[in-house]
Amino acid sequence: MEKCIVLTSGGLDSTTTLAIAKNLGFELYALTFDYGQRHKYEINSAKKVSEYFAVKEHRIIVIDLRAFGGSALTDDIDVPVHEEAGHIDRNSIPVTYVPARNTIFLAYALAWAEVIRAHDIFTGVSSLDYSGYPDCRPEYIEAFQKMANLATKEAVEGNPVNICAPLLFLDKADTIRKGIELGVDYSITHSCYNPTPSGLACGVCDSCLLRRKGFLEAGIEDPTRYAD
Amino acid sequence: MEKCIVLTSGGLDSTTTLAIAKNLGFELYALTFDYGQRHKYEINSAKKVSEYFAVKEHRIIVIDLRAFGGSALTDDIDVPVHEEAGHIDRNSIPVTYVPARNTIFLAYALAWAEVIRAHDIFTGVSSLDYSGYPDCRPEYIEAFQKMANLATKEAVEGNPVNICAPLLFLDKADTIRKGIELGVDYSITHSCYNPTPSGLACGVCDSCLLRRKGFLEAGIEDPTRYAD
Repeated sequence: MEKCIVLTSGGLDSTTTLAIAKNLGFELYALTFDYGQRHKYEINSAKKVSEYFAVKEHRIIVIDLRAFGGSALTDDIDVPVHEEAGHIDRNSIPVTYVPARNTIFLAYALAWAEVIRAHDIFTGVSSLDYSGYPDCRPEYIEAFQKMANLATKEAVEGNPVNICAPLLFLDKADTIRKGIELGVDYSITHSCYNPTPSGLACGVCDSCLLRRKGFLEAGIEDPTRYAD
Repeated sequence: MEKCIVLTSGGLDSTTTLAIAKNLGFELYALTFDYGQRHKYEINSAKKVSEYFAVKEHRIIVIDLRAFGGSALTDDIDVPVHEEAGHIDRNSIPVTYVPARNTIFLAYALAWAEVIRAHDIFTGVSSLDYSGYPDCRPEYIEAFQKMANLATKEAVEGNPVNICAPLLFLDKADTIRKGIELGVDYSITHSCYNPTPSGLACGVCDSCLLRRKGFLEAGIEDPTRYAD
């Protein structure tokens, strides 16, 4: 069985990505980052999801992105709320952008991949239904793969790595349809940037809006418990 | 004054790189990684060097590369010793290679650069007198820069980042000559992979051999205290 690494946040996209990788016959190695998020619900969901897919190994790496700051997800900046999905401005990069986040995540994945001799790294980024982050675009993924294949001993010795982004050209509704087809239980996933103290999704952040809109468009009942 | 980030290990190369960046008129932000090295002497040298150059800020980021392993520098594998520099096999990648190390270091530097709005990241990698690591080659540095300029909000908004590797085509002797010209005190730097408990350089690891050979070829007295 070929090994693969899957960046696993506990959210809807990375969970669907795990399902896709499993369906392709890979042995799953889940990699989660505890990066000073404002909430720990993501980590708990990542654990549940990793158990659900019976991954071979689940590593949680603590990285202190708060040391640098620069994002509403790591600093004490308010996460913006919206009344409806149409309010999201797709032409500007929001304050929830975390500087170089995907580059740091993929760099760690590259290190682990080399050590366990995995040659496929899966990420759930999408260039369609996303929040305007530059490191979710196809040209970024392609450039990372090129760089990665010049970086490692494993690649230089003839075993290049693939950065697999199966949701890159899927919108949220298509992602959900794909996941349901593969048997994903979305009730154990977590998308909200700003959950209530008891763990309910706020329902009004970018991430909640995209999730709600996705289920609505897919015609599938959203199992999430929203506060609003 | 333009800000720049300098990857600062406390070694000969990164110290020379700090001197070059300072001489170019940059305001210096030093970035050091505590990555489970087998010795803490590197970190102490990085602190001394940062003070010496009166950097604006020195950040030490703890990252656990031991979580993945795969290197003599992070695991309990013996660091190889050699009797003379000629014994180093330049055609194979040694066990001191750390998987994806420079990619992880530069990814963090990219994050910090974006937050403080620095557009130059300096690294002391050399493609000549090095230990055969793939992530010290010009094609790697170029690919990282391309990827970085697709990754960040700052780049997308028209402020690209430069990955500056001023030692890329210098051998160790030229690096030392350059540093001496710029007033570097090499006695505060640390190169050894395998120092004695009292902090003397072993004198026989790859890194010591390259350092010794460099001073010898440059015709400059080596201020290092060697055990052997």
